[in-house]
Amino acid sequence: MTAVVGIDLGGTNIRLAAWPDATALASQPVPAPAATRREEVGSERAPEALVDRLAGLIDGVLDEAGIDSTGVPVGVGIAAMLRGTDGTVANSPHLGWRDVPFGALLRERLGGQRHVRVANDVDAITYGEWRAGAGMGTNDILGVFVGTGIGAGIIAAGRLLSGAFGCAAELGHVKVTTGDDARPCACGLRGCVEAYIGGAYLQRRARAELAGGAHSLAERLAGSVDAVTPGHLDAAAFEGDDYALDLYAEVAPLLGVVLANAVTVLDPARLILGGGMLSRTPVLRAHVMAAFDIAVNPPAAAELEVLDAALGDDAGLVGSALLAAN
Amino acid sequence: MTAVVGIDLGGTNIRLAAWPDATALASQPVPAPAATRREEVGSERAPEALVDRLAGLIDGVLDEAGIDSTGVPVGVGIAAMLRGTDGTVANSPHLGWRDVPFGALLRERLGGQRHVRVANDVDAITYGEWRAGAGMGTNDILGVFVGTGIGAGIIAAGRLLSGAFGCAAELGHVKVTTGDDARPCACGLRGCVEAYIGGAYLQRRARAELAGGAHSLAERLAGSVDAVTPGHLDAAAFEGDDYALDLYAEVAPLLGVVLANAVTVLDPARLILGGGMLSRTPVLRAHVMAAFDIAVNPPAAAELEVLDAALGDDAGLVGSALLAAN
Repeated sequence: MTAVVGIDLGGTNIRLAAWPDATALASQPVPAPAATRREEVGSERAPEALVDRLAGLIDGVLDEAGIDSTGVPVGVGIAAMLRGTDGTVANSPHLGWRDVPFGALLRERLGGQRHVRVANDVDAITYGEWRAGAGMGTNDILGVFVGTGIGAGIIAAGRLLSGAFGCAAELGHVKVTTGDDARPCACGLRGCVEAYIGGAYLQRRARAELAGGAHSLAERLAGSVDAVTPGHLDAAAFEGDDYALDLYAEVAPLLGVVLANAVTVLDPARLILGGGMLSRTPVLRAHVMAAFDIAVNPPAAAELEVLDAALGDDAGLVGSALLAAN
Repeated sequence: MTAVVGIDLGGTNIRLAAWPDATALASQPVPAPAATRREEVGSERAPEALVDRLAGLIDGVLDEAGIDSTGVPVGVGIAAMLRGTDGTVANSPHLGWRDVPFGALLRERLGGQRHVRVANDVDAITYGEWRAGAGMGTNDILGVFVGTGIGAGIIAAGRLLSGAFGCAAELGHVKVTTGDDARPCACGLRGCVEAYIGGAYLQRRARAELAGGAHSLAERLAGSVDAVTPGHLDAAAFEGDDYALDLYAEVAPLLGVVLANAVTVLDPARLILGGGMLSRTPVLRAHVMAAFDIAVNPPAAAELEVLDAALGDDAGLVGSALLAAN
């Protein structure tokens, strides 16, 4: 029996979970962890300070679980763009890091003898869904998670597809239009699908357009323009609201075609959809999938299953633990 | 020393090559085969007849090479959409086949004891370029071949990416636009990038538009509208011809963005470009790559190498032989 620790290091929260038996993790329902931690990341985000804190949290969660820490592997899913295979963070806007050898720092801080595996957070989530969630039993999945932004992970032929430089699966930055009037994305370029239908972008755009004179039932449902969320837009669309339906007619096909093209290129057995937004916007999702159905290469779609992510907020913890244990 | 036979079964020609030593194949320059065959496919395309003929050609090429056929593996790159891993042809418009167990038929015809590996022709080409051509020394490549249509192959983490249902990498059928005015593709859908910039489509469109009253230097260069090829369009574009430049301004960004998005998703070490058209249309290629540079995810592009395919027409023979020997 090999114990394992999974860590989800996001822009807002640090979460940890310790399991006494890593081999039992890849099952449904996923066994409850023996101990967990959840803290806000807070304002002190210097790499060394955060690595120190993580080391303490790892000791603490193992101690509470009654697990001897010797040799216990540690997996971290981090909201960052990685480079290479040793856990170097190329860029994390969330943590304000650039070129930080995070994996090496954490490994060293833990004594240098323990296996530390660092993965992009969405890769960890996708890996968790593959081994213990909606992707179980297949070798090829595409996981797409639409929350404030759009993230994705790819399992191809039974392995996490990381790419040559560690930045594969950046589906949110697939371009859906070009030119100077394409919408700007936080990545610095224009025309990324995330800039059209990522939750934060969609919400900001709707609020700006409603504040600028557009009218929508969403505003009434929300109480004020500044409170409008994608959920309100979806409720308005369900009621036939022109503003919401026009907005959806523009943006839903963009994501639908991006998903279709990714399936045409990757030919996964399952397309797994998750994230905070799509689950609260069923009308938007239906419009997205209608466009998907038209655009996808039929041979890749014939036996494709489209499923909801199964592990919810725990997918990153489970996935990073499984990646470390593997 | 293990001998091997590679076969390129296209819509027009059958080509075979026999090498006495498969392990020496993955090197540059690729060793010349000990014997080769080239015949037209001809009109008799029934699967059993063609399998009989292939068996005779295999015996003949091995005999000429002085190789004992016992146990010699056979690789076939075929212009077909495959299903699964045993060489079943789901659909080959070129051969008029649907649901043909080609791999099993050929294996049985060869006595049932020999290893027969069937791959999509562009997958075989990409595999050849990876092991013995422009992709040597890396683990992740995207090969894109623009000829009459657009085909692609993917090597991810040192393996040919086939997909869950054997139809990955159909880059030609990535959608670049939607709706009823999107151009129809031979695949039956609309808006595929191939329908805009595949050589056959581009040529047909230019001839139709010039016959319909458009004016271009390409017509003068070709001698008549019916003789205009993409090469003439490119020569006209080089001279500043409005028609050709307007056409390029429309279609080049479509392929540029498709290539960029594929790199953003796959993060290969090398993008390898080949095929009969792009090599004869340098102006078009420059326009395509200008759009690519703007649209690609910068972290995936930072160390990406964009190279020409190195093996030319022999890539399929070499790749199918290497796939069989592997």
